[in-house]
Formats: sequence, structure tokens, C-alpha cells
Amino acid sequence: MELKNLGEFNFIHSIESDTIYDPNTVVQGIGDDCAVYKVTEGYEQLVSTDTMVEGVHFSFQYMMPYDVGYRLMTANLSDIAAMGGIPRQVVLSVAAPGHIDTRILEEIYRGVKEQCQHYHVNLIGGDTVSIDGPMVWTITIIGEIPQGKAVLRSGAQPGDVVGVTNYIGYAATGLGSLSYNLDGYPMTRIGHQRPEPQIELGITLRELGVHSMNDISDGLSSELNEIAKSSRVSIIIDETLIPLHEETYKLAEALQTNPIDYALLGGEDFQLVFTAPKELSKALENLGSITLIGEVIEGEPVVQSVTKAKEIRLLEAKGYNHFHE
Amino acid sequence: MELKNLGEFNFIHSIESDTIYDPNTVVQGIGDDCAVYKVTEGYEQLVSTDTMVEGVHFSFQYMMPYDVGYRLMTANLSDIAAMGGIPRQVVLSVAAPGHIDTRILEEIYRGVKEQCQHYHVNLIGGDTVSIDGPMVWTITIIGEIPQGKAVLRSGAQPGDVVGVTNYIGYAATGLGSLSYNLDGYPMTRIGHQRPEPQIELGITLRELGVHSMNDISDGLSSELNEIAKSSRVSIIIDETLIPLHEETYKLAEALQTNPIDYALLGGEDFQLVFTAPKELSKALENLGSITLIGEVIEGEPVVQSVTKAKEIRLLEAKGYNHFHE
Repeated sequence: MELKNLGEFNFIHSIESDTIYDPNTVVQGIGDDCAVYKVTEGYEQLVSTDTMVEGVHFSFQYMMPYDVGYRLMTANLSDIAAMGGIPRQVVLSVAAPGHIDTRILEEIYRGVKEQCQHYHVNLIGGDTVSIDGPMVWTITIIGEIPQGKAVLRSGAQPGDVVGVTNYIGYAATGLGSLSYNLDGYPMTRIGHQRPEPQIELGITLRELGVHSMNDISDGLSSELNEIAKSSRVSIIIDETLIPLHEETYKLAEALQTNPIDYALLGGEDFQLVFTAPKELSKALENLGSITLIGEVIEGEPVVQSVTKAKEIRLLEAKGYNHFHE
Repeated sequence: MELKNLGEFNFIHSIESDTIYDPNTVVQGIGDDCAVYKVTEGYEQLVSTDTMVEGVHFSFQYMMPYDVGYRLMTANLSDIAAMGGIPRQVVLSVAAPGHIDTRILEEIYRGVKEQCQHYHVNLIGGDTVSIDGPMVWTITIIGEIPQGKAVLRSGAQPGDVVGVTNYIGYAATGLGSLSYNLDGYPMTRIGHQRPEPQIELGITLRELGVHSMNDISDGLSSELNEIAKSSRVSIIIDETLIPLHEETYKLAEALQTNPIDYALLGGEDFQLVFTAPKELSKALENLGSITLIGEVIEGEPVVQSVTKAKEIRLLEAKGYNHFHE
């Protein structure tokens, strides 16, 4: 059924059920002018908002509607993970054209709710409006962090080691295999379509005492530059240490590209990059899913890397800029 | 300059300054994966999100870009007012086409910030993305309320009086005068272009002990029906008691319409409608800006009104439904 025939109120009613996955914190969910929720004493609050536009941030060419919702929620959860925080509540706004089939919206919501349920996050509010244009989804997420413990970008210190979680360039590999229509990349395709936020690792890293942290939504090169700039330090990494999945090497060989580029420039891994006191190195490596790839030094806020050929190159902040053509 | 030439990062940088109007609550504002803020002990948190789409919720035909931002912020503040809450933090997402003149965006932000400053609300986060379509603005507002004191829609009780704040149908009168290009409606035009949220009255009404409350964003008829339905009570009002501005009477005469219809069906007044124990009647009327217009009775969740001709009619929940054609 088309949204304009079902109507806004009926649609909202249809998605209102099954939205509370941590009832202890909710006083009033969807259905009043505001939602009302409780916070934990001694904790500070985190908030982040992310907007995804059809045709810019997602399309249904390589993703099912369910995946779009799943990944939208992951992107928001990842911002909480990047602070070392605990996700708690979300509100969701959607602008959709009247002619859209409500089954598409329902599938996107199903993906959102799946992730809410997994991470015990409540969907406590939203807005559904009409647009003569592409769909626009905005999620605002609220989380918590013990007082004074938020891990900022600006905390890196000379002498810190630089680490990352799991594989980098993983999602870009999956997307690359899809866009070139190549078979044999099952793991990284899932990584592109249904990435997971690193909530638990983020909390563990914060508890261990890392100094700075970012999630990797715009490629490692861009995220390292953000830490360097915010912390006013220099960062140098060893490219050969960046953890790449075997499918990344395979795709790079098939396409005659540099496998490292998937990690440095490819976005939306939703892994974490952080800097930590050197004495934590052993504890970090014992976590199993952490790889140390470089160090923080005094100097200009730039990022350099040592290549496989032992050359030093400057890594630029080539983040994805939605407006530059 | 066009947004695509200035670039997302530069634009965000340009609007990042002058966003904190209550520094006591902010640990980290714009510029990290999340903002970090403090809450008041013993208070619960409120959250609401509102999306406005160019061509659907606003146009530049009758409003300047500054007014659009001002009113967007008012709509969000009004949701906090409707709970009797105190607004604290907002995050703002904008999807804009690359060809837009950044001066338009800056003016919208100026309107948003003007209202933030007035109500001591911090702008602590956001997202700026590209869209091949109309502008989409989403604000999520976070507020606070003493524990257990949020005024819900569902609290109306038989025997309650029904009251409203200030004038109703005011914004609709201003819009009507603009769309018919009629002179002589200076007050209600301002009411349409730069409406004010009733934050202080909302707090006063909550402290007095009103039972239920809504803000009037979709017309009095719709809002009364929401209270009746949520509270499972019947509401009856006297149309002749609804406070109308003299410009509303004047416009109705000029256009040969029923002046009451501006109040019942016209939206975006951002005034408050509430029900309260009858014994508060005197205290309410002493506030000066309150008019009592009816009462709550037992019965089906419907709203009826007594007309000027002493006839009873059913007021339907004819809220503005964005998707029905």
C-alpha cells in the first residue's frame, strides 16, 4: 500500500509497537509531545545525530531496505561506541514521498529495530513527514558515559600507540565486489550491508584507559587526521600493520589496486581507531581484536605512513565530503 | 557562495561558533563523534524530534529564511513546553542541495540560534548532508522535568476544566492575510512568521498542577481530540469562549468565513491547551493569559462544542495529515 493511502497516523501506529528494549529507563515512549526517560546517576549524557539521504548515502541497488535500516542504526550506535559510551535511546525521523510502498518503510524499520533490540536501545520518538523527493532518514541517539570518562578525539598524547579494531577496509571491499559484480566476497559483502558497531570494544577500551578514539566512518586516513588535528599531535603509522581481510587482498589483486587504499580511503567500517599509553600495549593486544599500527609523536598535526617500500608518505584528510563534486 | 563550493566541513565550521547559551551543562559541544552534556539530579529527561521539509512545512513565499529557522526552533521548544519541561540541548540536521546559496542556510541558522539564545538552549551537534531535492531540517530537542512531573496527554479527568493560553487561530489568521494578500494584519503575521513557544506558561501550569496538556500545532480541534482519546474522556467546549484576536474577526468578516474555524482548524499557534482540576479555576484565570473554554466529562473519547447558535456539534480530529491528499 502506498504511504499516502495508509496515512501518516496509521503508519506511525503500525510501527509504534515493539520499540522498547530496555523498559527500566522509559517513563513515556512514543505517543505524546515528548518521550520521557530516566538517566543513570553519576553518568553524563551523549548525543549524536546522523542523516542518510536516498541516492547519496544509500540506494537499493546493493542493499535491501532491511539492510538500510540496519546500517543507519549501526552508524548511530558507532558514534556512541567512539566515545566509549552505552547507547540508551533513539528518536527517528523519516521524510518519504507519498507514493512509496509502505512495505519498504516497514523493512527499513525492521532493520532499525533489530539493532535496537540487539543493543537494548529504545525507540522512543519520531516524526514522519512527506517529501517530494528522495527519502531522508535521521536518527538521533542518546547514550551514557560515567562522569568525566568520555573518550574524545582531542586526548592523544605524544608517546601513545595507535590501534584499530578488527579489519579495516572491510566494508569498502564488500562494496567494491558488489559494484564490479564479482563473486567470492561473502564476508565483506555482509560487512558492507550489515556492519556492526563496536559498542563492547569501545567500553573495554575506555575502561582500559585509552586517550583518544574515533569510529571509522570516513576511512582511516580521514579519522587519523581528525585525531591529529584535535589533539595537536603528529601521527605515524606503518601501512603493513593495518589489518586487512583476505578478501581485501583478493579484490585488490583482481582489480589491480593497492589493498591498503581500501582501509585508508574506504568508509563505513564502523571500527574504532584510538591512541593509548604505550604501557597498555600488552593489555590491548591480549584483547585479540586489536592491532597496533603506529604511534603519536610531537609535531605538526599531520598523519604520515611508512609504506611497504619503506617510504614515508603524507596521509591526507580525504574524508568523504558530500558537497564537493 | 553555493554550498557545494564552500564544502560541508567549511560550512559546519562557519556555524559552529556561538552555539552554547548555557555552558554549565555542556562538557563537549560540536566537534566530536558525540556531544557530552550534564543533567540535573532528580530530573527526568524529555526528547522530541521535528522535521520540516521545504515546500511542505515551509516555503520562502511568506517567510524569510530567518523566520523559517525561528519557527522550526519554536516548534521544537513547544513540544517541551507541552510537557511543562525546561529545554536544554538541541541537535540539528540539514539536508540541502549543493546549489543552495549558503546565505540562505546561514539565515535559517541565525533564526534557530536566536531562539536557542532566548531560551538558553545549547546547539551541541548536527549533521549536514547533500540532497538532490528540497531542503529537509530536523531538530531533536532534549529537555528536563522534575521526576514524575511530566504533564501527559493522558491525564485528563472528568470534572476538569479545559483551558488555553493567549489567542488561538492567531497564526492561521496571519497566514490567511498573507495568502489573500490583505493589508492590516500586522500582529497575526508576526504570529505566523515568528511564533513563540509557551515555555514559561508550561512550567507555571505544571507547577499549578494541571492534569493534561498539549501544544497546539495542528489546530485546537485535533489537539482536544488527542487529549480525549489518550485520557479516554469526553470533552465539551463553548466556542464563544475561545479567545480570538481582533484581526481574526476582521479577516473572517473580510473573507466571509467563520472566525472560530481559524482556531479549531488552523495550526501552528504553539499555544497550550490543558485540563485542570476545577478548584484551580481561579488561580488559572489570575494568570491573565489563560482562558477557560470547557470541561471534561465521562463518556466516549469525543470532543463536542456548543456553537454561538447554542447547537452542539462534534469536533473531529481533522489534524493536518501530511500524506492524505
